[in-house]
Amino acid sequence: MQGEFSLGELAVRFGLTLRGEPNLTVRSVATLSHANAGTLSFLANSRYRRQLESTRATAVLLSAEDASHCPVAALIDPNPYLAYARIAALLHPPVSEAPGIHPSAVVANGARIAASASIGPLAVIEEGVQIAERVRIGPGCIVQRGASVGADSALVSRVNLYPGVTVGQRCILHAGAVVGADGFGFAPNSGTWVKVPQVGSVRIGDDVEIGANTSIDRGSIDDTVVENGVKLDNQIQVGHNVTIGAHTAIAACTGISGSTVIGRRCMVGGMVGFAGHLTIADDVVITGCSLVSASIKNAGSYSSGMPAVETRLWRRMVAHLRRLDTRRDNVGVR
Amino acid sequence: MQGEFSLGELAVRFGLTLRGEPNLTVRSVATLSHANAGTLSFLANSRYRRQLESTRATAVLLSAEDASHCPVAALIDPNPYLAYARIAALLHPPVSEAPGIHPSAVVANGARIAASASIGPLAVIEEGVQIAERVRIGPGCIVQRGASVGADSALVSRVNLYPGVTVGQRCILHAGAVVGADGFGFAPNSGTWVKVPQVGSVRIGDDVEIGANTSIDRGSIDDTVVENGVKLDNQIQVGHNVTIGAHTAIAACTGISGSTVIGRRCMVGGMVGFAGHLTIADDVVITGCSLVSASIKNAGSYSSGMPAVETRLWRRMVAHLRRLDTRRDNVGVR
Amino acid sequence: MQGEFSLGELAVRFGLTLRGEPNLTVRSVATLSHANAGTLSFLANSRYRRQLESTRATAVLLSAEDASHCPVAALIDPNPYLAYARIAALLHPPVSEAPGIHPSAVVANGARIAASASIGPLAVIEEGVQIAERVRIGPGCIVQRGASVGADSALVSRVNLYPGVTVGQRCILHAGAVVGADGFGFAPNSGTWVKVPQVGSVRIGDDVEIGANTSIDRGSIDDTVVENGVKLDNQIQVGHNVTIGAHTAIAACTGISGSTVIGRRCMVGGMVGFAGHLTIADDVVITGCSLVSASIKNAGSYSSGMPAVETRLWRRMVAHLRRLDTRRDNVGVR
Repeated sequence: MQGEFSLGELAVRFGLTLRGEPNLTVRSVATLSHANAGTLSFLANSRYRRQLESTRATAVLLSAEDASHCPVAALIDPNPYLAYARIAALLHPPVSEAPGIHPSAVVANGARIAASASIGPLAVIEEGVQIAERVRIGPGCIVQRGASVGADSALVSRVNLYPGVTVGQRCILHAGAVVGADGFGFAPNSGTWVKVPQVGSVRIGDDVEIGANTSIDRGSIDDTVVENGVKLDNQIQVGHNVTIGAHTAIAACTGISGSTVIGRRCMVGGMVGFAGHLTIADDVVITGCSLVSASIKNAGSYSSGMPAVETRLWRRMVAHLRRLDTRRDNVGVR
Repeated sequence: MQGEFSLGELAVRFGLTLRGEPNLTVRSVATLSHANAGTLSFLANSRYRRQLESTRATAVLLSAEDASHCPVAALIDPNPYLAYARIAALLHPPVSEAPGIHPSAVVANGARIAASASIGPLAVIEEGVQIAERVRIGPGCIVQRGASVGADSALVSRVNLYPGVTVGQRCILHAGAVVGADGFGFAPNSGTWVKVPQVGSVRIGDDVEIGANTSIDRGSIDDTVVENGVKLDNQIQVGHNVTIGAHTAIAACTGISGSTVIGRRCMVGGMVGFAGHLTIADDVVITGCSLVSASIKNAGSYSSGMPAVETRLWRRMVAHLRRLDTRRDNVGVR
Repeated sequence: MQGEFSLGELAVRFGLTLRGEPNLTVRSVATLSHANAGTLSFLANSRYRRQLESTRATAVLLSAEDASHCPVAALIDPNPYLAYARIAALLHPPVSEAPGIHPSAVVANGARIAASASIGPLAVIEEGVQIAERVRIGPGCIVQRGASVGADSALVSRVNLYPGVTVGQRCILHAGAVVGADGFGFAPNSGTWVKVPQVGSVRIGDDVEIGANTSIDRGSIDDTVVENGVKLDNQIQVGHNVTIGAHTAIAACTGISGSTVIGRRCMVGGMVGFAGHLTIADDVVITGCSLVSASIKNAGSYSSGMPAVETRLWRRMVAHLRRLDTRRDNVGVR
């Protein structure tokens, strides 16, 4: 399935400096420690330089500084991880699906499906849906009324797009992702709740990746928006009316409450909670397990994740913190 | 699809005071800032009163206090958000499904399905299931042995009810919801675990809404219970034997450990963790990202979510907290 | 469906001491407080001993110490919960599925499916898949190219195995579980992200249980590994290249970042966050809602979950904590 490439060919194609025999070939990637002949490995962090010594890889992608420590052929680049990403995609291309609609799929008459698209087994495509060229809709996906998927995007399997959701080009959505379910909107009515219809939709830009079991709610009136190049890990919850700015990356299990606007190029750790109606600036970093309870105006790194310690020590720390409050506010007033 | 309603008609139907021309008509809802002619908007919070100035809505739902600032027709109610919820439901009715069973659905012979119910494409209805009048089972849903769904409820798509689960009337369950999977019960046996059969079920009351990718485990012996009017957001985890009291609302990503009993009319923020075997009183509010580790006897608001600050400051705060413990417990004893 | 067993038979079969009439029979299990004639209950924690007084169970499993308080027949064992687990499995055996492939399932020609296995309605089994003896693939499951499932395992319903994933023997996977989706790997490229192909897979050992809506990502190069006997609750996120050691149990909503290695026989509470690239020793306990941000070398219990208190008090505690930092670092230096 995979091709074989010579180091010389890779050096030319990706603009790398080769130190070694250009006729050597590689077929697949490997970690330094598990590499065999015919594999290409990489070293992106000098901290792991010692792993070079014993590697059996045919060649290693690394920086000029690390190259002198490399006992095998070296492909040198200032950003070896980026070069690795590109070469790995060449060596391990995705399995391509034959165009066409699987006979077990249920496709509405009024759906428009490009000839080069593939619709997998037991997928459901409802009325008014538009599927663009080379889109891959995997097994068990459900694309509801009037939703659309842009060219070269993939719904890997069991993805669910609710009515009217739009997905851009070159997106990847993983199993269990739900895009466009109702936002959590209820009006209080003397001790009970009255549902507020969620009449907005969700717009997903181009080059967005959405992880397994991630949920993105439709807007209550206007749309929920995920801009171009956003990368969402698994099990993320995006509330109604949220906007996530272009090229922001968010790690797993993070939850974003309704109407919060996150800037561009932000990096958000795992299990972060965002309160609602906030505005987060561009280029903000939030470390894992933080609670963002107020808007952030300036780029920078923000945290509130409390590191675990021995339980006995932790209990004392909590007790001390409580006791601070009983000291008549005399902390800091000496 | 949507109807058109005159302001006069809406005022009469919903008991609102109209200040403006009764013959003006609206077709859909809009936010104040994105409204156009033919739309109805609302102002529920005076803080956003300034948005009234430039709105192009045909009419705005608001309180008497805000009405004097409204440059267009005003529909006045002491609870404009509640009135909005009801009028939005009138203007944006759900798409109705034709009754009947889609030919691609797999329905067991012994299932009892009301004539007015609709079973969507590629749904699975197992033996002994009961589906009441006007229920809508969407595409890809799985309703296992002996489960039942009450009148007027909707399983939107890809919902999974395990065997024996009962769902009441007028409920809405969203994609990816799993109700009735085994609770997490294992008996330790010299360093390994022996599964404890989970022989209870789940009972969901009337008027319950369950969000996307939310999981509610079946009871270990007795049932897990979700009472009438409960609203659960996305990605919530409800452990075995939990009871959630009537009209309680819980935001996304919250987890409730086994056997905890939550009272009525509680409001629980997102990403809250409840320990197991607790009892939480009625009318309790828990703010987001809190850990509830002990029972709560009195109504009121409870918290432990730590707000994010700049990472450098946060690290110092953590260091200070640790150091409190090394001071031989002398904090507070001066 | 269920059988009826005499207490004498149970005592012999499970090596229990019987105090009572051996000819009495039980048909099902019950909690002490909801028990009726014909049911067996258990008391595993002496704290609940008072519930014995009024129980209407035919017999109760309990320890010798508690047995003297038991007003009905007693089955005595030093580990009554373990004995309960085994007897409950006898009284409540899982419904068995007839072997064979449901006609609505979509099974590739090249898949190898044991004759004793059952493939449920609307399941998808792709090319190169191997399904061993007595495996149960429930409704709506998707098993992608080259994945394999070992003997006696069950994919209950709507489980999704990505290509190449291997699942061992006697495993149980619940609805919504996704095993083998791409890990979250992207190389930065001047403000945008380039996808790093995720070419590893996932290996699940024997006797593993995986809860509803849990996600386990495939490795970026090497495999993600879940060893024998691991028990994962619902909505857990396991990042790429993680290893979870044998017989470790993890409660719901916990997230494990990439490349972290968790030891054997650990017990991890709910909603715990693990940073990436950590090593956690064997026999570590992490209490709920903790953030594990550094490797743990020694067995023991670790915590950082902050218990909720009244919101007003909590706000003051946070203010005090911040203020510690403004005191020119004079805390602890008196």
